[in-house]
Amino acid sequence: MDKTRVEAFSDGVLAIAITLLVLDLQPPAHGRGQLWHQLLRQWPNYASYSVSFAVIGIIWVNHHTMFRIVARVDRPLLFLNLLTLLVVAALPFPTALLADNIRAGGTDAHVAAAVYSATMLATAVALVAMWQWVTKDGRLLRVPLDADTARRSRRRYGLGIVVYVAALGLSFVSAPATLALHFAIAVYYIFDQLPSPEPEPEPEPA
Amino acid sequence: MDKTRVEAFSDGVLAIAITLLVLDLQPPAHGRGQLWHQLLRQWPNYASYSVSFAVIGIIWVNHHTMFRIVARVDRPLLFLNLLTLLVVAALPFPTALLADNIRAGGTDAHVAAAVYSATMLATAVALVAMWQWVTKDGRLLRVPLDADTARRSRRRYGLGIVVYVAALGLSFVSAPATLALHFAIAVYYIFDQLPSPEPEPEPEPA
Amino acid sequence: MDKTRVEAFSDGVLAIAITLLVLDLQPPAHGRGQLWHQLLRQWPNYASYSVSFAVIGIIWVNHHTMFRIVARVDRPLLFLNLLTLLVVAALPFPTALLADNIRAGGTDAHVAAAVYSATMLATAVALVAMWQWVTKDGRLLRVPLDADTARRSRRRYGLGIVVYVAALGLSFVSAPATLALHFAIAVYYIFDQLPSPEPEPEPEPA
Amino acid sequence: MDKTRVEAFSDGVLAIAITLLVLDLQPPAHGRGQLWHQLLRQWPNYASYSVSFAVIGIIWVNHHTMFRIVARVDRPLLFLNLLTLLVVAALPFPTALLADNIRAGGTDAHVAAAVYSATMLATAVALVAMWQWVTKDGRLLRVPLDADTARRSRRRYGLGIVVYVAALGLSFVSAPATLALHFAIAVYYIFDQLPSPEPEPEPEPA
Repeated sequence: MDKTRVEAFSDGVLAIAITLLVLDLQPPAHGRGQLWHQLLRQWPNYASYSVSFAVIGIIWVNHHTMFRIVARVDRPLLFLNLLTLLVVAALPFPTALLADNIRAGGTDAHVAAAVYSATMLATAVALVAMWQWVTKDGRLLRVPLDADTARRSRRRYGLGIVVYVAALGLSFVSAPATLALHFAIAVYYIFDQLPSPEPEPEPEPA
Repeated sequence: MDKTRVEAFSDGVLAIAITLLVLDLQPPAHGRGQLWHQLLRQWPNYASYSVSFAVIGIIWVNHHTMFRIVARVDRPLLFLNLLTLLVVAALPFPTALLADNIRAGGTDAHVAAAVYSATMLATAVALVAMWQWVTKDGRLLRVPLDADTARRSRRRYGLGIVVYVAALGLSFVSAPATLALHFAIAVYYIFDQLPSPEPEPEPEPA
Repeated sequence: MDKTRVEAFSDGVLAIAITLLVLDLQPPAHGRGQLWHQLLRQWPNYASYSVSFAVIGIIWVNHHTMFRIVARVDRPLLFLNLLTLLVVAALPFPTALLADNIRAGGTDAHVAAAVYSATMLATAVALVAMWQWVTKDGRLLRVPLDADTARRSRRRYGLGIVVYVAALGLSFVSAPATLALHFAIAVYYIFDQLPSPEPEPEPEPA
Repeated sequence: MDKTRVEAFSDGVLAIAITLLVLDLQPPAHGRGQLWHQLLRQWPNYASYSVSFAVIGIIWVNHHTMFRIVARVDRPLLFLNLLTLLVVAALPFPTALLADNIRAGGTDAHVAAAVYSATMLATAVALVAMWQWVTKDGRLLRVPLDADTARRSRRRYGLGIVVYVAALGLSFVSAPATLALHFAIAVYYIFDQLPSPEPEPEPEPA
């Protein structure tokens, strides 16, 4: 299986999932002069849109970083990749669920936050499984991963899972705080990415 | 007709169709403290989302395998490819139909399962027609297909049609069992793909 | 402006527009044992889905054929291309409009068919304008177009406009007949494409 | 980070956002013989669809022009690019909001026009921030930007921000005039693009 087409298909699914998030932003019913007020009341929709957008953006960056060191794609990797995409493509659903219920408070808000966090956790687990498979031995890699980079990246991914488990726990305390935590995680990962495991061979791509 | 652009367009349609499946996952009406219960009641939506996602994933893999051996695209192949995409792009519809009716039981569930299975059967028939056209003689191929590989792949595709006809029959017995069968077929095809008819020429794509 | 990115963007918009057509296929309200009957009543939706799918497929093929002979993209061409995409991306709207009104008959069906035909006409006009601009002189072409090919392709495009004007007229007589005519036009163009104005330089694209 | 995949992902998001605009064009409720009249009443939807389509088209052109001179993508640029996409992908929302409220007049129309203009302003600011980062020093560029081109392009981008601030002000006077102004801006930018900062090295891309 040619990795270029796997990457292109994955990019397509990620780009579509990130853009479909906008469907949860809908104009309020006709305003009767209260449109500004009604728009402000929709803040959970804007917040969850932004957080999920950042999360899918990060997944895309990590996905790309991972495939940069991959030379070929075998069937288990193909299967794990489809599994990851299945979870990520579903993200507009928990996003809308959280936006719908965060302001209600009580059990419903906690359940919605927990579903949201569980989906993020599932995404992280799927990515870790892909990473484990890719780095298990040298068969799928362009160049072998040195032991230090492999150890650091595994620790890093493991930490991500711990943080998402914490977010799952926090869901039962406060839904808005959970959303804020997910935002913080996403921004953190944007600025502190997975260390690129090899120097870029072509510094000036055409 | 340049096969690269046909592949890119097909990949685009498949990536969009697979991602649009999420539109059938909608938050339940406001929860009144019963959100968890209401979410569990939506299991047919999660199940049909997952099965259809796996099916489109498999179609994508098979489509790619087929085009790897193709050197050029003539008009009948272009037409058959558009026909295949027409059926696959419609898959979110029977998926939503099945999710809506599976729990109702009775005639409606059977009709929905039958429409779902018939769409899968149509997809399989369209793919088989493409495969027949591609392998009919050597004109469209990069290298001629050896007789053994051609025979095995035809038997394999023929088997797929038989299985989908069986799924169509099963629809009138049990809609949930039909959905489970489609899931089993998809997972089976992920792990046992069409034999790649030629050794990969470039083991390390850049 | 690099033509590769123009093509990729256009392909993306066409692939998304063709796939969004499925959103007009929705499961009927819960079936009460009448699902099969209710599904059959939705035939205008299946018919208009198929016709519009074929039309966008043809536009994609023609767009590709046109860009194969183009060497560079100037601003008017970029503008005309965006205009073409604007019309094509809107096609799901008249498609849904026609499906909603075709069975009603009377004025509404005629208006819907006329809007549908007018959109097709607008697409054809936009494509012709692009073709005129591209072939006006040799500046944008990879190799100059010989006079005979240019004349034949212009006649062909002009004929397309005449046929769409006829479809617009037919709309006020019979909406179903208009839909059938659009289907016939699309299938005709699939099998009788614009003559490729130069022999393919690379018979075996990698 | 490889700029090719950043461009492809951005193109995907822009192509999807531009095509999702059509979802705000919906057939009116069944026509009762008044379909033509009902369609005419939807003019704000057609107008805002066209304007937003043109705006996203322009953003795409500018995005592409910017990346043509970029040699590599660092993390801040990646972050700014995701921020830009976050705003652009949200455009179907203010577009639908404006279409829903423009005819109502009064406060609601002004609020909707202001939200629309503010989103455009945010897009312009995000693009300017990207441009500043890219041209800050020579590190990310293929060839250094000469001082004159840099100054002109900054003045041009600064002017764009001034115009969008004016549109924001105009929103509180007249919503239709605001929409017309946005259309004029978009068409102006199509015909007077950012000066390409270097001669095209390959006049005939394959």
